[in-house]
Amino acid sequence: MPIEPTHRFLRACHSLPVDQTPVWLMRQAGRYLPEYMRVRQQAGDFLTLCKNPDLATEVTLQPVYRFNMDAAILFSDILVVPEAMGMTLFFETGEGPVLEPVLRTPADLRCLRPVDPEERLGYVLQTVVQIRQALNGKIPLIGFSGSPWTLATYMIEGGSSKTFRYIKGMLFDQPALLQQLLDQISDVVVDYLNAQIAHGVQAVQIFDTWGGVLGPREFVAFSLRSIQRIVDRLHRVGPDGQKVPIILFAKGCGSLLEEMIGTGCDVIGLDWTTDAASARHRAAGRVALQGNLDPAVLYASPEIIRMQVGRLLRDFGTEPGHIFNLGHGVAQDMDPSRIADLVTAVQEESRLLLRYRQAGEE
Amino acid sequence: MPIEPTHRFLRACHSLPVDQTPVWLMRQAGRYLPEYMRVRQQAGDFLTLCKNPDLATEVTLQPVYRFNMDAAILFSDILVVPEAMGMTLFFETGEGPVLEPVLRTPADLRCLRPVDPEERLGYVLQTVVQIRQALNGKIPLIGFSGSPWTLATYMIEGGSSKTFRYIKGMLFDQPALLQQLLDQISDVVVDYLNAQIAHGVQAVQIFDTWGGVLGPREFVAFSLRSIQRIVDRLHRVGPDGQKVPIILFAKGCGSLLEEMIGTGCDVIGLDWTTDAASARHRAAGRVALQGNLDPAVLYASPEIIRMQVGRLLRDFGTEPGHIFNLGHGVAQDMDPSRIADLVTAVQEESRLLLRYRQAGEE
Repeated sequence: MPIEPTHRFLRACHSLPVDQTPVWLMRQAGRYLPEYMRVRQQAGDFLTLCKNPDLATEVTLQPVYRFNMDAAILFSDILVVPEAMGMTLFFETGEGPVLEPVLRTPADLRCLRPVDPEERLGYVLQTVVQIRQALNGKIPLIGFSGSPWTLATYMIEGGSSKTFRYIKGMLFDQPALLQQLLDQISDVVVDYLNAQIAHGVQAVQIFDTWGGVLGPREFVAFSLRSIQRIVDRLHRVGPDGQKVPIILFAKGCGSLLEEMIGTGCDVIGLDWTTDAASARHRAAGRVALQGNLDPAVLYASPEIIRMQVGRLLRDFGTEPGHIFNLGHGVAQDMDPSRIADLVTAVQEESRLLLRYRQAGEE
Repeated sequence: MPIEPTHRFLRACHSLPVDQTPVWLMRQAGRYLPEYMRVRQQAGDFLTLCKNPDLATEVTLQPVYRFNMDAAILFSDILVVPEAMGMTLFFETGEGPVLEPVLRTPADLRCLRPVDPEERLGYVLQTVVQIRQALNGKIPLIGFSGSPWTLATYMIEGGSSKTFRYIKGMLFDQPALLQQLLDQISDVVVDYLNAQIAHGVQAVQIFDTWGGVLGPREFVAFSLRSIQRIVDRLHRVGPDGQKVPIILFAKGCGSLLEEMIGTGCDVIGLDWTTDAASARHRAAGRVALQGNLDPAVLYASPEIIRMQVGRLLRDFGTEPGHIFNLGHGVAQDMDPSRIADLVTAVQEESRLLLRYRQAGEE
């Protein structure tokens, strides 16, 4: 029987009551932090940083300590998975990621290899161990992976895309081939996330960054189907006996909330284009929700940030099961002091709201 | 009393019965057509092409004749409006549009001037006249404008944006200033679209390309509010006594269909992330719908294109009030023969469906 968690982030993931709304931010570690830029320069380049457990641990912890976040998220990149499967990954300056050779034919798929995470992604698992040691039980650690659909977009397009020409061409013309690739990726993601859990991550988030470029029928048939395959096979109790919640964040897919809930995830992450109050109504307590402040609110003044935080907290309401986050990652040009304003506002405003609720006044 | 239209595109806009589903495509004139590239080279650059009524007429007509489209759409650019208001517009090769100087303060807004369309945008009106002469009543002509929100994003950011940092900063910190700018733009758009109607366009489309980057509350309060201001003041009967339908296309805003219908538009354009069957159900005959094939279907084979067209036509159903279109513009790297396959499929498949319906068999 799993142990009931004590950390407020993990409690909120399981829709248990909390003293204040937990907060962490997607891409909370990154270029907007001067202390990150120093470590990045030390590493030389981004991928080297991801593969160095000491440095990856350091940048994971930076925002947690600076802002008093309620969760740490493993510093890594979703594209280490295609690399582990045999593709060549590099980052062109200012151009984004490149994966070679691109996958377009059945023969291309045969070049992919199965992945033993210990062997091919050991540096990530080692980083997990080191972060857990450093956090010493005070703050939970979130692991993550890209969704199979999102990973496949990079593997088939060879990098970022605007039109998704090749993967959508394959989806419509050779759906069975695409499903085969998605299954191959799903199997790797299952083993990868289970290895992260075995090494100590206390929650996992699946990022479906590009689910929103699909029509509803295709999202369900291709992206959600492969996410379901993962959810069904994850170890949902960690080595410490605690339940490991699964968070699904599919950008631009808020209209398919019911379908996402159907996968059996514990938490659905929402971007800011979904109305929080109606999402809570639609979720009807079946899952916790994570989100969903427009990151651009952080370009406004501290007073407005606080006002918007208060409004969003009231939209989500005081029923258990809300984790505060942005609707997308922190932008590279963000002023770190605004992040501090945000986190403080969430902590203070939510504490006040929850206290009123306990007193039966709201 | 307005005259009932005979063209199937205009009939569908007013939810009147048609013999086959009318079809036109956003960005149907453009770089994917070799005959367009020849004219573009003749003009020298894009903006010169827009400002030359002879050449703009020629490229407007190219796809209409090549593919047998049911409507022509004026060849122009949404950013001629900010230019007419006093900003400097140019296109950097491969970089997209640049508008200078950017608008950030109340003083910046005072530099904008009111626009007499005859004087500042006469080349567009002259193009409208020439296209109507060339079409000679056979095919209707659609005029258009960007929405005030979408135009404001370029005017405040100085061009395209990924984060919308400055306009969103203004939205949250100085909402009254942003509303003032949106009102100024709305007034220009009203006069501009009314001038297009007076010169002969038979329908107008408002493109809210960037409405979808807003949260639902902000979309309604800023973008939709200024669109409402326009809809309320357009002349909805043309000089020929025919009703002039208003089409609203707000990309990524399908979840706010009811709110868009509330503006009193005749047609709502949908992108492919909205399910067609449920959109028809939600619209409940109050407006016609336009859309919404994923443009990436055109990267598939002709057989698959036809299959997807048939499926979409059945999703929209045979009740009057559907205009076939893509959910976004034709991509620059599109093979023109695929567009021909698409248009033929819409014509043949819809004719068949509608004939069965008339026979009471479906």
